[in-house]
Amino acid sequence: MTLQTPLIQSLDLTVPIILAPMAGIAGGALAVAVSGAGGLGLIGGGYGDRGWIEREFEIAGGERIGIGFITWALARQPELLSLALERGPRAVLLSFGDLRPFAPSIARAGIPLIAQVQTVEDARIAVGEGATIIVAQGTEAGGHSGERATMALVPAVVDAVAPVPVIAAGGIADGRGLAAALMLGAAGVLCGTVFYAAAESLAHQNAKKRVVEASGDHTVKGSVFDVVRGYDWPTPWAIRTLRNAFYDRWSRDLDDVRRTPGPHRKSYSDAQDRGNVEVAAVIVGEAVDLVRTIEPASALVERVLTEASDCLANGAKLLDLSHRGNRRSGL
Amino acid sequence: MTLQTPLIQSLDLTVPIILAPMAGIAGGALAVAVSGAGGLGLIGGGYGDRGWIEREFEIAGGERIGIGFITWALARQPELLSLALERGPRAVLLSFGDLRPFAPSIARAGIPLIAQVQTVEDARIAVGEGATIIVAQGTEAGGHSGERATMALVPAVVDAVAPVPVIAAGGIADGRGLAAALMLGAAGVLCGTVFYAAAESLAHQNAKKRVVEASGDHTVKGSVFDVVRGYDWPTPWAIRTLRNAFYDRWSRDLDDVRRTPGPHRKSYSDAQDRGNVEVAAVIVGEAVDLVRTIEPASALVERVLTEASDCLANGAKLLDLSHRGNRRSGL
Repeated sequence: MTLQTPLIQSLDLTVPIILAPMAGIAGGALAVAVSGAGGLGLIGGGYGDRGWIEREFEIAGGERIGIGFITWALARQPELLSLALERGPRAVLLSFGDLRPFAPSIARAGIPLIAQVQTVEDARIAVGEGATIIVAQGTEAGGHSGERATMALVPAVVDAVAPVPVIAAGGIADGRGLAAALMLGAAGVLCGTVFYAAAESLAHQNAKKRVVEASGDHTVKGSVFDVVRGYDWPTPWAIRTLRNAFYDRWSRDLDDVRRTPGPHRKSYSDAQDRGNVEVAAVIVGEAVDLVRTIEPASALVERVLTEASDCLANGAKLLDLSHRGNRRSGL
Repeated sequence: MTLQTPLIQSLDLTVPIILAPMAGIAGGALAVAVSGAGGLGLIGGGYGDRGWIEREFEIAGGERIGIGFITWALARQPELLSLALERGPRAVLLSFGDLRPFAPSIARAGIPLIAQVQTVEDARIAVGEGATIIVAQGTEAGGHSGERATMALVPAVVDAVAPVPVIAAGGIADGRGLAAALMLGAAGVLCGTVFYAAAESLAHQNAKKRVVEASGDHTVKGSVFDVVRGYDWPTPWAIRTLRNAFYDRWSRDLDDVRRTPGPHRKSYSDAQDRGNVEVAAVIVGEAVDLVRTIEPASALVERVLTEASDCLANGAKLLDLSHRGNRRSGL
């Protein structure tokens, strides 16, 4: 089974699903699993841990995966792009910053440049700067995002950059979301939250368990978890996570964390290692309501695809019924 | 042409589109136009201007329209519900507050109670309180909304309240959005922004012109326009509008408006009357990118329906092509 979209054709996939390059979560094993299932697996370049990137590419063992970078972080260590390009990635995704320092070398390497954007204006700019595929990311996404939401952003970006393929991201974790994205004019979807809980994800087991029990009503967006981790995110991007005790405590006293970051950072890092999810951030989006199992990524891809196909087939029946209804009533 | 959904069946419509009951904008003429085109026109009960409601019902002249109320405002003037019920509305929509004081009399009158909610939890509560149709409204909507976005909220609400029909609202202004909403499991859509610019809308002509030129990148959400108008909105709801000079000036000095509301209110009200859209709020949502014409509502409904039908038919072709592709490649 497959779904014929421009994304599949341009990246030689069989499934129009891209793994979000979640920092520290989307490693080689998860990326290989998604690529193996017909989608595009991207490892998370994150904040520039060279050893981590090298190791995860090695784990992928030459499988055709790609990599995603946080653009402003990559600008501080541009050599990491060369490291990635030497490994022949299937695509490079850049988000949150200026593509211009990186687009030429990606183009020279003959690698597709996927730009993730959060506004219509930034989509136009990204195409001008050499992006060949645009991800329109809504504010309901897990991790960092902008202010616009997926439902209206995607068709507006499609109109703005046609015929460049547009991928929908944010709030999509099942086949209903994939089918909806295709109706909006997207050529596929980029999903994080559903893969965060995949068997191959590098998230702590406690975090995965929290995900399958959580509601999207209980995500929060802010800068608490960036401040405590020492990441200096530029505006207008902020991080969405599940709400937890740490967030509730320190969102009121964030200046205290800023003034004396050392002890906070140490205890946060310890909590992360131990899987204490009342302190460490579970970085998922509003689609978490739709994630109810911890499974191999291949099973998740298969389920999303099957469900989307069913939705599309049922959508066509709404039309068929109306025709039959009209005929019955003599209209 | 029609689309067979549970909404159509339960409200005896031919088109699964509901007019958002925009305060001061959705009057009798607009509601009649949407109902006449096969959808459900709702006039905006707003903040409780009895004369306005009586007049707009009169303008509707006995056509089968409904009405929407801001629930916390209705609680201050509950007699307005009786006024509405005496006119035999096709449905009553309540949003932003506790349904319990109103649900019994609506049920006794045999009128469908549509509850608009902004979280999964509130959807469950609304069904328990007697709502027969749920509108799941995303934060990208124009006017007041909560914090969750449409794409992930709708399927989560569908799962939470099945088999109660769920209508998607927020970010939907064309047939792509309607088709996407149906894929998410919605039984229809509720649209404000696209009808704000309709010929029959009560918005000032200058505001309509601003809408057809605007981008969703330039909406803002906050309380500036509530404070200046003297509306005491409870949390967590805030108002989304186009950004303008008044917003930019007073969002930084909102306490000044709070301290001396009189002069601010007077000049704001004058600007509203004159159609000065750099002061008066143009209350539309992120879908404004998709609204490019000022037309009769019947033409808008027809276009949304035709476009949605095309999207659904094309979605089915993605499946057909994949089957043919598989056969060609011998898989």
